[in-house]
Amino acid sequence: MSGAATSVGPFSAAEIASYVGGEVEGDGTAELVDVRSLAEAGPEHLSFLSNRRYYRQLKTTRAGAVLIDRRTDAHGHTAIRCDDPYQAFARSLELFHPTPWPEPGVDPRAAVAEDAVVEGATVEAFAFVGPGARIGPGSWIESSAYVGAGAEMGKSCRLMPHSVVVAGCRLGDRVWLNPGAVVGSEGFGFAPSPAGHVKIPQTGRAVIEDDVEIGANSCVDRATMGETTVRRGAKLDNLVQVGHGAEIGEGNFLAAFAGVAGSARLGKGVVLAAKSGVANHLEIGDGVVAATGARVLKAQPDGARVAGYPAIDHKQWLRAATRFADLPEMARRIRKLEARLAELEKEETEEKEGD
Amino acid sequence: MSGAATSVGPFSAAEIASYVGGEVEGDGTAELVDVRSLAEAGPEHLSFLSNRRYYRQLKTTRAGAVLIDRRTDAHGHTAIRCDDPYQAFARSLELFHPTPWPEPGVDPRAAVAEDAVVEGATVEAFAFVGPGARIGPGSWIESSAYVGAGAEMGKSCRLMPHSVVVAGCRLGDRVWLNPGAVVGSEGFGFAPSPAGHVKIPQTGRAVIEDDVEIGANSCVDRATMGETTVRRGAKLDNLVQVGHGAEIGEGNFLAAFAGVAGSARLGKGVVLAAKSGVANHLEIGDGVVAATGARVLKAQPDGARVAGYPAIDHKQWLRAATRFADLPEMARRIRKLEARLAELEKEETEEKEGD
Amino acid sequence: MSGAATSVGPFSAAEIASYVGGEVEGDGTAELVDVRSLAEAGPEHLSFLSNRRYYRQLKTTRAGAVLIDRRTDAHGHTAIRCDDPYQAFARSLELFHPTPWPEPGVDPRAAVAEDAVVEGATVEAFAFVGPGARIGPGSWIESSAYVGAGAEMGKSCRLMPHSVVVAGCRLGDRVWLNPGAVVGSEGFGFAPSPAGHVKIPQTGRAVIEDDVEIGANSCVDRATMGETTVRRGAKLDNLVQVGHGAEIGEGNFLAAFAGVAGSARLGKGVVLAAKSGVANHLEIGDGVVAATGARVLKAQPDGARVAGYPAIDHKQWLRAATRFADLPEMARRIRKLEARLAELEKEETEEKEGD
Repeated sequence: MSGAATSVGPFSAAEIASYVGGEVEGDGTAELVDVRSLAEAGPEHLSFLSNRRYYRQLKTTRAGAVLIDRRTDAHGHTAIRCDDPYQAFARSLELFHPTPWPEPGVDPRAAVAEDAVVEGATVEAFAFVGPGARIGPGSWIESSAYVGAGAEMGKSCRLMPHSVVVAGCRLGDRVWLNPGAVVGSEGFGFAPSPAGHVKIPQTGRAVIEDDVEIGANSCVDRATMGETTVRRGAKLDNLVQVGHGAEIGEGNFLAAFAGVAGSARLGKGVVLAAKSGVANHLEIGDGVVAATGARVLKAQPDGARVAGYPAIDHKQWLRAATRFADLPEMARRIRKLEARLAELEKEETEEKEGD
Repeated sequence: MSGAATSVGPFSAAEIASYVGGEVEGDGTAELVDVRSLAEAGPEHLSFLSNRRYYRQLKTTRAGAVLIDRRTDAHGHTAIRCDDPYQAFARSLELFHPTPWPEPGVDPRAAVAEDAVVEGATVEAFAFVGPGARIGPGSWIESSAYVGAGAEMGKSCRLMPHSVVVAGCRLGDRVWLNPGAVVGSEGFGFAPSPAGHVKIPQTGRAVIEDDVEIGANSCVDRATMGETTVRRGAKLDNLVQVGHGAEIGEGNFLAAFAGVAGSARLGKGVVLAAKSGVANHLEIGDGVVAATGARVLKAQPDGARVAGYPAIDHKQWLRAATRFADLPEMARRIRKLEARLAELEKEETEEKEGD
Repeated sequence: MSGAATSVGPFSAAEIASYVGGEVEGDGTAELVDVRSLAEAGPEHLSFLSNRRYYRQLKTTRAGAVLIDRRTDAHGHTAIRCDDPYQAFARSLELFHPTPWPEPGVDPRAAVAEDAVVEGATVEAFAFVGPGARIGPGSWIESSAYVGAGAEMGKSCRLMPHSVVVAGCRLGDRVWLNPGAVVGSEGFGFAPSPAGHVKIPQTGRAVIEDDVEIGANSCVDRATMGETTVRRGAKLDNLVQVGHGAEIGEGNFLAAFAGVAGSARLGKGVVLAAKSGVANHLEIGDGVVAATGARVLKAQPDGARVAGYPAIDHKQWLRAATRFADLPEMARRIRKLEARLAELEKEETEEKEGD
């Protein structure tokens, strides 16, 4: 059972304000059944303004109440004033749509090894829990999820259908794996030889710390030796690749198709936009932001913002990219300059010869 | 049981012509056992000419009969004349290789919730059908496919092994999910906070309309609120990503590694070539074509053809890309121009001073 | 049960030397428990020097013994001299971490068709083996792996959890599929028509030759007609896409997110770096190397090294890419040249008029 589209509301504006830590301005008894964007909300909906871009919609929204910061004019709407409306929006969705977490218990159609430890956890049909594996209390192994021999996870993890934790790997607390996510696949390591590539056994493991979410069909390879690490609070989108021995830093954000090659080390708060990539063995500083499609081929200091291929300073790249379409015109202008200059030089020579 | 490599033929040229809506020119009794390209066909094979590029091969092919348009010289081959030989080719393959659809029935090793509705459908071993799910007649849930609680699908859908439809999502009729495809994974939404990223519950669903095919290991995220939509007849290749709240238009074509970010809206007949991407919240008009690797960062009007990063008009990009390799030479020529000009200016000054 | 992180050692330096085909220089009785990098090794570890870049670490390493070539100064460490230290490293890891291959046998919770042949193989819980499938001796079908009707594989293959071999496809000997890898997904083929895209039935199969490894969540499509082929010894990383009818050459290396479009044919020893792609129907010669992100849009002769989009000669691309950031400055210099030249021309004209 995964998150369904129904709401447990209604809640009054006052109840919501209390839950998100805000104060009502207007009708605290207004009953709301769910959350919608300003454009889509009706009188029965809570809405929110977290981005100035949508300020105009605030004037015309039909929402029954609005999460808003402490200074902005609410245009007569019932307002729930709070410090961070976007966070309050996230918390409100949580209020209306609590994740329907199941009771602990092992489905008789699951395959759980005799010496595996699964007390207080839920294991659904066709899930596999190998010998010596340990599943923490409150964790939820959905149907057809796989936990290999000796793998361990903490409490309140969620392995969605068809996610895989290969033998020997370790998850912290509250780790979510989306469908098809793989933790602990073989690293891509082969030694060239005249007789063909010799496989380098991938003897390490992958370690995923607390509060990490990994998207659908993303992959985190096990290390050749030692550990591949995804640090606390990092969020990986769908179809992300983390190579063997890499370290994904605390609170990192890796968008879809981002790739981190083997043994690269990312600092805290790094953001890799969609389709960007980091080459192997690089050190990437804290807070580095790589724009969509950036190919980072060099180490980056803290706070660097890069784009392009090879990745350079983002602003510098932007100026150059803006000029890219002008290349044919620039070439024409150079040719023209050359012709005009040759003409002048000729005249100059003739003048001199005429002197 | 998936499509096998055997054929149910032979069929005569006349039978094939009747099936594809064409007319035989030559020997209608010729028996054909399967379809092959012009280069690979023997006398027992049907072949086809749909691309002028292969016209030369028509002269030398050993094919027993050829699907061909109504005007082209058949060079003495038995011809099946038709309006659209490529479509006739598709239909002939269908004739020789009908998909081996199974009889309805639920394998006793499947896990089907008591209140799920699966009449007239096939559910194979280790497939999971959650509480309240509805599977339409003639649909085929292959081994280890997953249908979450309250998910629904119409008739004649095919969920190949290990495909996943998360709780609450909905498929129309004749939807095919390739192995590992995921419909309804969590959208990538988090609110930044001093204490780390706060997960924004993804309370919406994903809706896949009639006649959509989704490739292996592709992902369609559920919406934060409301719906992510893939409209009728859209075709998604392998390893494609559709973000939360996006709308993929009717008859769209998304090739491998194409990515559509959250809340982007694509019109009808949009083509995203391999590895191209569309940024979030953009409106993309009908018939837009993005070339391979294009990164679309701005809204696009109907019929736009774009390439590059950031994506610009395709022809303009092509002219610029052709010049890219000339950059070092252009730089040299600029330096040379500067030197020559400085020389001229010096002479000019000397002349003046000499005056 | 997959590769765990424990070691079966200790082994003496002499035993290791004998296993990897080298000779001990120093203390052959030194006992080693596992392999580590020079930086991480302690006195109980074997280490290795295969890359001159790490030569400095050799001097300071605490390793108990070092795999090293026949000429380099071992700086007093117990050395195991060998021809190729990197290969010896691979073989040592194999010695300390033999893959824990299971005993043959079919788990009663697997679904194996009556007429499937699985003698001498291992089939785990929830694995599916379809009618007429053949699994060679010593092969290992892990939990929830899928082998379709009529699919065949040789000896000592390993299908990791949730890997899929669609009906009719064939694997050689010693083929490894990582979790979520798919062999035989539908090719992406549709014929346009006024009523929408008509599916072109994908009637062929995919054939994977001996000693191939395919990464997690990678996809190899079945052919429209005939075969998609991955030749002997090719290695595919995670999230790689191989289109229908393509041929991946012997010993090819395809890194993460590499894509090969339909009917492209790659020669022997081709390397596609991460995120590179080859367009459809192209012939790529032996030993071609495409750099990360390269988009190969033209046929390539043997030994070509290409980069960029569209891909050009790697060195040429590198020179141009280095200049890319200079574009705005080049544009400025052109403008300045034009102004200075116009000035000169004006003076020249005035001079002439003054003559």
